[in-house]
Amino acid sequence: MFFSVNRLVLIDEINKCNRIIDPKIPTPSLSGILLEVEADKISLVSSNSSVSIKTVIDMGKSDLQIKETGNILIRGKYFLEILKRMDDDIINISSVENNLVSLSGEKSEFSLNILDFSDYPSIGFREKGDTVTVNNIDLKKSLNQTIVSVNEWNQKIVLAGLNFSLDNSMFYITGTDGFRVSRKRTNVLNEIPEKFETNIPHKSILELIKLLPEKGECKIVSIDSHVTFIINNTIFQTTILEGQFPNVNAVFPTDFNTTLYMDNKKFFKLISRADIPSEDNASTVVNLILNNDSIFIKSNIHQIGSFEEVFKEFELKGLDEQNICFNSKYLIDSLKTFETKNIEINLIDSKKPIVISSSEDMNLSQIILPMFSN
Amino acid sequence: MFFSVNRLVLIDEINKCNRIIDPKIPTPSLSGILLEVEADKISLVSSNSSVSIKTVIDMGKSDLQIKETGNILIRGKYFLEILKRMDDDIINISSVENNLVSLSGEKSEFSLNILDFSDYPSIGFREKGDTVTVNNIDLKKSLNQTIVSVNEWNQKIVLAGLNFSLDNSMFYITGTDGFRVSRKRTNVLNEIPEKFETNIPHKSILELIKLLPEKGECKIVSIDSHVTFIINNTIFQTTILEGQFPNVNAVFPTDFNTTLYMDNKKFFKLISRADIPSEDNASTVVNLILNNDSIFIKSNIHQIGSFEEVFKEFELKGLDEQNICFNSKYLIDSLKTFETKNIEINLIDSKKPIVISSSEDMNLSQIILPMFSN
Repeated sequence: MFFSVNRLVLIDEINKCNRIIDPKIPTPSLSGILLEVEADKISLVSSNSSVSIKTVIDMGKSDLQIKETGNILIRGKYFLEILKRMDDDIINISSVENNLVSLSGEKSEFSLNILDFSDYPSIGFREKGDTVTVNNIDLKKSLNQTIVSVNEWNQKIVLAGLNFSLDNSMFYITGTDGFRVSRKRTNVLNEIPEKFETNIPHKSILELIKLLPEKGECKIVSIDSHVTFIINNTIFQTTILEGQFPNVNAVFPTDFNTTLYMDNKKFFKLISRADIPSEDNASTVVNLILNNDSIFIKSNIHQIGSFEEVFKEFELKGLDEQNICFNSKYLIDSLKTFETKNIEINLIDSKKPIVISSSEDMNLSQIILPMFSN
Repeated sequence: MFFSVNRLVLIDEINKCNRIIDPKIPTPSLSGILLEVEADKISLVSSNSSVSIKTVIDMGKSDLQIKETGNILIRGKYFLEILKRMDDDIINISSVENNLVSLSGEKSEFSLNILDFSDYPSIGFREKGDTVTVNNIDLKKSLNQTIVSVNEWNQKIVLAGLNFSLDNSMFYITGTDGFRVSRKRTNVLNEIPEKFETNIPHKSILELIKLLPEKGECKIVSIDSHVTFIINNTIFQTTILEGQFPNVNAVFPTDFNTTLYMDNKKFFKLISRADIPSEDNASTVVNLILNNDSIFIKSNIHQIGSFEEVFKEFELKGLDEQNICFNSKYLIDSLKTFETKNIEINLIDSKKPIVISSSEDMNLSQIILPMFSN
C-alpha cells in the first residue's frame, strides 16, 4: 500500500472516523480506522456498537495519487496527532512491514505501529430503503431545535432519542422527555415515501449534528433496524431505538385562552434572571402572573433567595388574567431554539400545557407542561 | 447598609475575591466575601488557608454612592451569578433584615440569604517590610517564564513554588523541579533592599498571575512568614514555603563547547513533531545528534512508533559533534517561554546540562539536565 494525499483533506476524514471510536470497546480491531486503498479512491471506515462511518477520498480536490493498493488498520488517535504535527501540504503514506506504516514529508519521517486489518469485521452499509432527502442545513437546525427536549437517560427507551416520521405527507422530527415536546416540520426535497417512521438514539444525533456541513443534501435511508445518512462523500449509519413513539399530536392543544406576543431576547433574559442558581444546579420554579397590562415573574429557591420583576413589553390576545408555574430550565431551553425576533406564548390555564411558537418560523413548536405551585 | 454602585465594577472585584475561595473550607464564614461599607469606600475581603485578598472600591470610576455604612458577609458565587444576570448599569444593594440582602435594578429585585459577618475572622494584611517594586507586566511575564519548571507536588517542599531573591543587587525569580531550572532577572523600580529572599507556593503564583493587570506597578512586601503583593486597589497576601532554596547559580554551567543559533519557532515545531503522543501521556526521549552541518532529531515510543528528521537551519559556534538526549516535554516547556525570534542552545557534552537563552532577552535562562540514552 502506497499513496500520497493532501494532509488537511486526510485530517478532515480521519477526524470524522475518530469521533465515533470507543477506545474501551471489547473488540480491539474496532479501536482502529480501516483504510481501504483502491485504484481510484481511499475509503476510511470506523465503527462502534451503535454507529458506523464510511467516508471516501477520491481524486477530486485531495491531491490523491495511488501508487499501490492495499488495506491497513491504523490507530486513529496517534495517526491524527502525527498528521497535525507535520507541516507538509502533501504527505506520503506506505506500509513498510506487516505491522508498520510510514508517514513522510519533505524532511521528516514517522513510523507507526498498526493493527492487523484482517481482524476488522465486515460492516454492511445499507444505502437502499425508504428514503427522505433534506437540505443539510435544515436537518442540522431541526435536530438542534428538537434534541433539547430529549433526555438521553430516559427510562422509556423509545424517548431517549428523536422520532423521524410522516404525518399527512409531511416530515416531522420530534423529541420529548414526557414533560415537554419539541416538534419541527422539515422540508423534503424528494417524493415523500409511503412510510417513514424511526427513532434515532440521542448519541447518534449528536454525532450526526457534528458531521452535517452547512451545504448540500442528506439522504436519510430507513431499512430494518438501521438508518443511514448519506452526506456527500460520507455515509453515517446508526442503530435505532425500538418501540412505539407516543402520538404527540394528541397532547398538542389547539384552542388557547391567552396569547402573549413578545420580543424573544427580552423575555429570554428575564427568565434567565429568574433562574436563580442553586447549590445542586436544580432548576427553579418560575411563576408567571398575567394581570391586565403587566406580567409578574417570581421565583425563589430555598436557602438561596428570591426574585421578582414586572414585565410590560408584550401584546396580548384573549384573557388578561393567568397564573402559571414552570420549570425555568425548560422555558430557557425552548426559547433558545427560536432564532426569530419575536415569539408567542399560548396559554389555556394553570394546568394545561403551553405552546411556544413564532409567526416567523411556523414549522417549529415547543410545548411545556406546567408545574403545580403551592 | 445601603449603597449603589456600577454593576460591572462590582463584578470585577467580586471575581477577584471569589477565585481564591475554597467552598470546602472547614470554617463556614470563609466561604463568604466580607463587604465592609465605610463612609467613602467599600472593602471586599476573602481568604483561604494560604492566601487572602482585600480589594477596595472607592469613589473613583465606580459610580459609588454610600447611603448607610455597615458590614455584610455574602455568598460570592450566588451574588456573582445574580449580578451577571442583571442588566442595569447601576444597582442598589441594601441589607433588608439580619439575614437578607436586596439587589435591585430599575425593574427587578433579588433577595439573597447572607451569612453572619460577626463570624468572620479578623485578617491582618501586612503592608510594611522588605519591599521590591516591579512593573506588573514584567512580573507577570517573569512568573509565566519560571513557573514552567515548578512541580506543584514536589516532595521537597521548598521546590513546590518560586524563589524570589537578590543576588549581587539584582532581583531574580527562580523555579526548579530538580531536573531543570528557569531563572529570570526582573527590573526593580525602587531602591533594592538589603535582603529579600522568599519562596511563594505554586498555587499562589497562579492566582497572582490571574490578578496582575498589564499596567501599573506591584509592591512586593516580605515580612515574617508572609508576602504581600500590593497591586493598585488590591492587596494579595500569601503564606510562604519554609526551607532553604538551593543555590542554583552553582549548577549553571558557563563554559560551553557548542552553541547552536536557530529560529525559535522552527526548532519548537521540530521538537513538537518529535514529541510522539503516547498512551499514558508519558514524555518522549528526544535524541539530538549534531554532525557537521546537520542536526538529526530522533525519538521513539515503545508500541507507538518512531520519528526522524534532519534539521539544517542553524548556525554553530564551537564543536560540531554532539549526541545528547532530553525529555521532550522539558525542551518544549522551555522553548515556549521565549517570546524572541531566535534562541541559543548551549551544550558541553552528553552528560552536562544545556542552557537555552536568547540574545534578545538576556534576563531569561532555561537549564535542562540531559537524559542518559541506551
